[in-house]
Amino acid sequence: MAQKKMILDLDTGIDDAMAIAYAVANPEVDLIGIIGSYGNVYVEDGVINSLKILELLGATDVPVYTGLQHSSESDHFDRMPISAEIHGENGIGQVELPMPARKPETGDAIDFLIDSVKQYGKDLILVPTGPLTNLSAAIEKAPEITTEIGNVTIMGGALTVPGNVTQVTEANINQDASAANNVFTSPLHLTMVGLDVTLRTLLTRKETQQWRDLGTASGKAFADIVDYYIKAYEVTSPDLHGCALHDPFAVGVAIDPSFVTTLDLNMYVTTDKEYYGRTVGDPARLDEPETNVKVAVNADVDAYLATFMKLLTTLFEEH
Amino acid sequence: MAQKKMILDLDTGIDDAMAIAYAVANPEVDLIGIIGSYGNVYVEDGVINSLKILELLGATDVPVYTGLQHSSESDHFDRMPISAEIHGENGIGQVELPMPARKPETGDAIDFLIDSVKQYGKDLILVPTGPLTNLSAAIEKAPEITTEIGNVTIMGGALTVPGNVTQVTEANINQDASAANNVFTSPLHLTMVGLDVTLRTLLTRKETQQWRDLGTASGKAFADIVDYYIKAYEVTSPDLHGCALHDPFAVGVAIDPSFVTTLDLNMYVTTDKEYYGRTVGDPARLDEPETNVKVAVNADVDAYLATFMKLLTTLFEEH
Repeated sequence: MAQKKMILDLDTGIDDAMAIAYAVANPEVDLIGIIGSYGNVYVEDGVINSLKILELLGATDVPVYTGLQHSSESDHFDRMPISAEIHGENGIGQVELPMPARKPETGDAIDFLIDSVKQYGKDLILVPTGPLTNLSAAIEKAPEITTEIGNVTIMGGALTVPGNVTQVTEANINQDASAANNVFTSPLHLTMVGLDVTLRTLLTRKETQQWRDLGTASGKAFADIVDYYIKAYEVTSPDLHGCALHDPFAVGVAIDPSFVTTLDLNMYVTTDKEYYGRTVGDPARLDEPETNVKVAVNADVDAYLATFMKLLTTLFEEH
Repeated sequence: MAQKKMILDLDTGIDDAMAIAYAVANPEVDLIGIIGSYGNVYVEDGVINSLKILELLGATDVPVYTGLQHSSESDHFDRMPISAEIHGENGIGQVELPMPARKPETGDAIDFLIDSVKQYGKDLILVPTGPLTNLSAAIEKAPEITTEIGNVTIMGGALTVPGNVTQVTEANINQDASAANNVFTSPLHLTMVGLDVTLRTLLTRKETQQWRDLGTASGKAFADIVDYYIKAYEVTSPDLHGCALHDPFAVGVAIDPSFVTTLDLNMYVTTDKEYYGRTVGDPARLDEPETNVKVAVNADVDAYLATFMKLLTTLFEEH
């Protein structure tokens, strides 16, 4: 099978770690690089976490670039206290993994993204699961990539359900609504995998126990990391009875769109203070025949979870 | 063909007048009554407008009941100034129609609704196109009607687009969010025809000219009434290039659901001050296998407009 080239743009983070595992495990994917972002963690910490997870999974040939450090609207980034509560102070559930043998790449992350679009074009899949700051910067530097890239599937936003930062704002979009608005209103065709569907794909201790039972290093580490996340969800979202698979679901949908039902819509992202970071349909463009966003609004949860568990469990058996 | 029994719950209003015309014109519909609500107008004025429109259209056998006068959250109703701007001081575009020969029914509107459900059950279609105060009161008085009634299709709410009162609130829901929340969270199965689709179905002066050219009383009156509405939209919503067919679209969808694509969702309506009147998915019930709301999220605009014009033009030819 012809593999699809994939770049992940991550603020690694527990569900980002699962997104890496999903991409590494999937035989249809050639993970050609990871770009680091701020968000769940500071960018430097997220990059180290990505390197640690890649090493844990034996994927030591995937380059990791350090992306932008803060929102396009700001000159610095302060990590939200809730991020440490949900992902742990170190971003990966306070689990201590060995310091990676490799270092981050020294090249520019935005250039790496642009160059990859030039090299692979329609064969390239980009999955940003953090703020859209890096992608917006790449579009600003090389606007032509919006029509050259094959597939952009983001984890972010909330259209049909409340946000998780404010009633109208999801956490990734909330980091940099201006960048998100640049992306959503660009000619780029993108798929939005937001809270509308990621709150439906829940993982519980039953699944992490299966990983723990493998007796491997990666199985045990991921069980510990994700159990931390499940425990945090029990406090922040007791209604859900599990943890949401935000980021790995976006990777799954990028590879197999049949996991979700989508709504075609032209959208913008609100940047005014009162409704900051709302991802919503643009009433002035409702009647345009062309739309550029496919919003995932329903999910085949069972099919996705079965694939998720099969891929990750097989990978964890080997490492 | 077996006609469907229909009750309209209207705050008549210009688009409510078109909803009456659509129901009267449709050979599949037996319009068995209209319940008046406050909203675009005071309830007494809306009831008179309904009687005037029915008389203009020769439908003098349809009883009109006076529903509740104000929101369940309040002890009175103040008409919003914008309502007079959009619908005219008299609610029907300042067009002077003869005072109706008939009077409103003296019976209770809520009892009429409940009794009609008892009589017709699954054969009954209810289309509320104003606040949901009357329907909520009927459910409170006779909760069993939620599972007995055949079809409830409302015009109201906004899921995937901003509201038209605040960024999160549509006008009908904004009148009485508590009543709307009672309806949305009841066992009732309902179809929500909100701004998501009604902003897509636009009428222009080209269409009203066709009615004017008929040379009939109803053709001229409706052309004048709707031209007033189109003129108001040119001021309030210059992006749209026409007037939205909010209320008659809900009647159309109630009879022929194929005019829209729907999303199955469990929802609530926000009643706190900051996001008052938002119609949104309930994150705690996303994974429930049963859903009770079908939200119209896309529309076959051409098919609907063709049916709308055929029905109304044929009716206006005769009166």
